[in-house]
Amino acid sequence: MADNKPLKAKFISLEGGEGAGKSTQIRLLADWLSSQGIPSICTREPGGSDGAELIRDLLVKGAVDRWTPITEALLMTAARTEHIARTIKPALATDKWVLCDRFFDSSIAYQGAGRALGTRYIKDMQTLAFDAFKPDLTLILDLPVKIGLARAKSRENAKTDSEDRFERLDLSFHETLRAAYLAIASDEPERCKVVKADQTVDSIQTTIRQIVKQKFNLPND
Amino acid sequence: MADNKPLKAKFISLEGGEGAGKSTQIRLLADWLSSQGIPSICTREPGGSDGAELIRDLLVKGAVDRWTPITEALLMTAARTEHIARTIKPALATDKWVLCDRFFDSSIAYQGAGRALGTRYIKDMQTLAFDAFKPDLTLILDLPVKIGLARAKSRENAKTDSEDRFERLDLSFHETLRAAYLAIASDEPERCKVVKADQTVDSIQTTIRQIVKQKFNLPND
Repeated sequence: MADNKPLKAKFISLEGGEGAGKSTQIRLLADWLSSQGIPSICTREPGGSDGAELIRDLLVKGAVDRWTPITEALLMTAARTEHIARTIKPALATDKWVLCDRFFDSSIAYQGAGRALGTRYIKDMQTLAFDAFKPDLTLILDLPVKIGLARAKSRENAKTDSEDRFERLDLSFHETLRAAYLAIASDEPERCKVVKADQTVDSIQTTIRQIVKQKFNLPND
Repeated sequence: MADNKPLKAKFISLEGGEGAGKSTQIRLLADWLSSQGIPSICTREPGGSDGAELIRDLLVKGAVDRWTPITEALLMTAARTEHIARTIKPALATDKWVLCDRFFDSSIAYQGAGRALGTRYIKDMQTLAFDAFKPDLTLILDLPVKIGLARAKSRENAKTDSEDRFERLDLSFHETLRAAYLAIASDEPERCKVVKADQTVDSIQTTIRQIVKQKFNLPND
């Protein structure tokens, strides 16, 4: 019967600047979905498949000006195309929800706005690479830049590698990112929801669960 | 006086299937240009700059189906964008001719035709990445596929690494490549000249020098 049919698997991306707490929130969301009987995978960009992780290495390490902005956008898009084909679509096809730490909105914010290539330019590149494929829901964790960078910096001390190529960009770059994310949310209010991230982890998670429940008509706990 | 003004530096690409002898012909062409007082650099794709060589490693090694066709095209284009910005344009700006072993026609042949993404698709991707930048002259070394693959195979025995990801594709793939190159030459007769490559090295080089002299109004030796 229709009522017993499992809900079609959904693709949810989490976005936001450095230190917004995306990976913590994704893990908590996956735990909660699991408690609701909904299987999911957690993945991230750039990366998320064997080949895409190799491209990630080229992107997140090295000098800030290591790549021209257009090369950077092409590499991000190449990694994403691989990630979609090898990880995201296969998971959705086997009824697993996909929770993704960053997706194409990161390219719009970082390369489109931050590197000044333009939103239209990045969107055209995404369309060329994977047509209209997009998340069912995008949660944008919004946070004052200084708080986010301070959080990212304290976390950085615990890292052993040097995946900080983007964090090392200056304050105005990160302000541009934040404005770009808010502009995306305003352009696509159906897909994108802004979540205030200067709250406790639990409080942010509660908001996220409410949004997910409402968006996909999940029952209350 | 106008007559004494050095000829604006030119960008020449050499194209063709495996084993057509491109790298040998490029070296001989550089030697001859040098004897005419024309400085040049020899470069190659994928690769040709520090970053592009790292992307090359991802492209030329590993399993044939390592990347989806679109990822492969994006990686090729990313490497090319880097190559243009870091190597080709700086050389031309300092009056050095650029002799390049493969350029975007390889993407049209390999990914557009061979991987069936379509010529229009690859051209759109190139335009997005670097507008209308193109070689002043493209020499397409044309050779029956079986002869080319036999040459590439004998050369392969001398290689220590395993840069043979494309050579391992089947005969019909290479026939498709050859037809694609001939179609490019027919579409753009001003830019592209076909050179029969089932000749001796010296004879091919003589033909190439004649084409270069005529195209750029160089004096006879």
